[in-house]
Amino acid sequence: MRRMVMTERPICPGFRASGIAAGIKKNGEKDLGLIVSDVPATVAGVFTQNEIKAAPVLLDKKRVDKGTCRAVIVNSGGANCCTGEQGMQDAVAMASLVAKALNMQADQVLVSSTGVIGELLPMDTIEKGIPGLIRALSSERMLECATAMMTTDTVPKVYSAQGTQDGKVYTITGMIKGAGMIRPNMATMLCYMMTDAKVSSETLQKTLLLSADKSFNRATVDGDTSTNDTVLLMANGVSGAVINTPEGLAGFQDVLEEVCIHLTKAMIKDGEGVTKLAEIVVKGAASNDDAFCIADTVAHSNLVKTALFGEDANWGRILAAAGRAGIPLNPAAIDIYFDEVKMVADGIGCGKEMEKLATAVLKQPELTITIDVNIGSGRASMLTCDFSLDYVRINADYRS
Amino acid sequence: MRRMVMTERPICPGFRASGIAAGIKKNGEKDLGLIVSDVPATVAGVFTQNEIKAAPVLLDKKRVDKGTCRAVIVNSGGANCCTGEQGMQDAVAMASLVAKALNMQADQVLVSSTGVIGELLPMDTIEKGIPGLIRALSSERMLECATAMMTTDTVPKVYSAQGTQDGKVYTITGMIKGAGMIRPNMATMLCYMMTDAKVSSETLQKTLLLSADKSFNRATVDGDTSTNDTVLLMANGVSGAVINTPEGLAGFQDVLEEVCIHLTKAMIKDGEGVTKLAEIVVKGAASNDDAFCIADTVAHSNLVKTALFGEDANWGRILAAAGRAGIPLNPAAIDIYFDEVKMVADGIGCGKEMEKLATAVLKQPELTITIDVNIGSGRASMLTCDFSLDYVRINADYRS
Repeated sequence: MRRMVMTERPICPGFRASGIAAGIKKNGEKDLGLIVSDVPATVAGVFTQNEIKAAPVLLDKKRVDKGTCRAVIVNSGGANCCTGEQGMQDAVAMASLVAKALNMQADQVLVSSTGVIGELLPMDTIEKGIPGLIRALSSERMLECATAMMTTDTVPKVYSAQGTQDGKVYTITGMIKGAGMIRPNMATMLCYMMTDAKVSSETLQKTLLLSADKSFNRATVDGDTSTNDTVLLMANGVSGAVINTPEGLAGFQDVLEEVCIHLTKAMIKDGEGVTKLAEIVVKGAASNDDAFCIADTVAHSNLVKTALFGEDANWGRILAAAGRAGIPLNPAAIDIYFDEVKMVADGIGCGKEMEKLATAVLKQPELTITIDVNIGSGRASMLTCDFSLDYVRINADYRS
Repeated sequence: MRRMVMTERPICPGFRASGIAAGIKKNGEKDLGLIVSDVPATVAGVFTQNEIKAAPVLLDKKRVDKGTCRAVIVNSGGANCCTGEQGMQDAVAMASLVAKALNMQADQVLVSSTGVIGELLPMDTIEKGIPGLIRALSSERMLECATAMMTTDTVPKVYSAQGTQDGKVYTITGMIKGAGMIRPNMATMLCYMMTDAKVSSETLQKTLLLSADKSFNRATVDGDTSTNDTVLLMANGVSGAVINTPEGLAGFQDVLEEVCIHLTKAMIKDGEGVTKLAEIVVKGAASNDDAFCIADTVAHSNLVKTALFGEDANWGRILAAAGRAGIPLNPAAIDIYFDEVKMVADGIGCGKEMEKLATAVLKQPELTITIDVNIGSGRASMLTCDFSLDYVRINADYRS
């Protein structure tokens, strides 16, 4: 049994969170967040594959390897990346300040930062903010924490779903921030997920990797990866639901995937300047890897993305992008659908009438573009978005 | 000896060209162009590597393999791609109409098309236009032909340079069109070059490939390749300069590269919405291939390109893009320069004063960004441009 939790204030039993405006951001918005588990939790993590890694990422990777944690502190307003030795000292200090105030071991506290690369964090401001951040902790303040980690995001993004194990209901609740520098493996994406199920850290890591491959690693906004990407999953077991059988694991995986996919879609929809969410499905490829290659290339094509923005059913650009993926194709065998509307049959356009129907599909906020290359049975999909004037405006002005 | 030819009406002895408004484009602009060699010429070609190839590309590839040609006809206003059997018949017919009127063998005429993918060409309109196109042929009408092949280009782009062999001066003259769907191997790029030197078709093909690798294949506008990319080089020998010694070949290669690089730069500067031309130089890599990988990734980063548009010396984005190229890096060893201004030393920013100087560099219409990864001696460069509001405007509205 799996069910979505619809509430204005999602919670996860045994976890508290908070988010405050400490003064790191010059505009007075929330910029410091905290998540604390009431009891020791197991933890799993997935991090950026970028060669340039921010100090908190380097720190968290080591600490997550130990398999347990109690808290995560996160700031927006500065990425603490390319900040040298001082940057690492600052990341360690952020964790230590929280650990001391909450009477935890320092290595049980994880740290994330997001914002502009290359500037030192204002540690005085952060230190002064921490007592208020801790006072604000509440099981009902997930949204505040999700707000504090926003950069160019426009809304906080939190989602909660539940499963059942041996008659005990458990919850998985996650929060995510984007909203640019997003592509597989991974993005300027911070995502914290919590569950009150009891799961070993090894199992937690495996399920997180599997879920990430079906969600975060199948999504792009602009093709740029970040130096700070971090996904954490904490399990504190307070529900009493123990995940340690194949059936239990399958159920947990199912709920986790739902949370990851929902958060991924929410992140892309809130991507910089995004007006449309599109799933690019490639089928009929020689292999799943070939299908992924094609889907990935189409999902990253600026010409496809600007056509989405312009609501222009320009299937020629989709074909042209598919054709440069480096995968052998038979152009005369390719079919393309916009939702259920067949735009291209055997590599040739289906005419003005179908184009009219396809244009109607394009006017929707969400759509699926299916490319059937009719070679084999390989299949893959990618989530992408349109490329708008606002994307350029946001990113030409980001630091000013 | 090599010299640039500065003239308002570049020519190439023994070649005539023309460009007219035949009515293919609805806006009344020039849309049909022709180049004719007065005598049989050798020919070499480089074509798109996209799996989806337009009919004229498929036709030209076969005809260029024969090593000789007399004429090229080109239309804008339609790509004749994904047009099936009828599209191939139309490409053959375009060539045959020219061949018949000029009393040539049909397989001595090459064809290019550019414009929207997936629509049949208006063959009646083209057929009616050909007599006027032929009447307009003149040695001084290279610019008219270059105008007729423009799509979103804003200016015709023609360039001419000369070399000397055994006391005889020879000319290489080329024309190019972009202006989007541009990336290595290759772009919606049509480029025709002519020379009055005498060069065997084998030598011509070798020198063209070498020159393309240093110019067209080192340039990007938006990362999308086209279905129609075609570069042709014709040599008719009327100057009497014979290129058949190693020294002669080196000189010819030198002049050809100058023409190719000049045309490439002109194309990028006239790219869709482009306000800046940037050369991304990567040095100190473990190999030239590694260096190219990094340069290519940075050159395609939308975040780097929007920062160029915003004249924002956001070196963090450059580092982040370099870091996702899949090449192992030592982040603490990387230096970044904007022209001569050192922005990053050992992976850390050089401070506000240097940033002010770098911002001044960014205000120039052309600049060089050098990334020294300080590992080995590998080196490569890529030409790229900024990513502007107008790029999105142009491409969201292209077909409307």
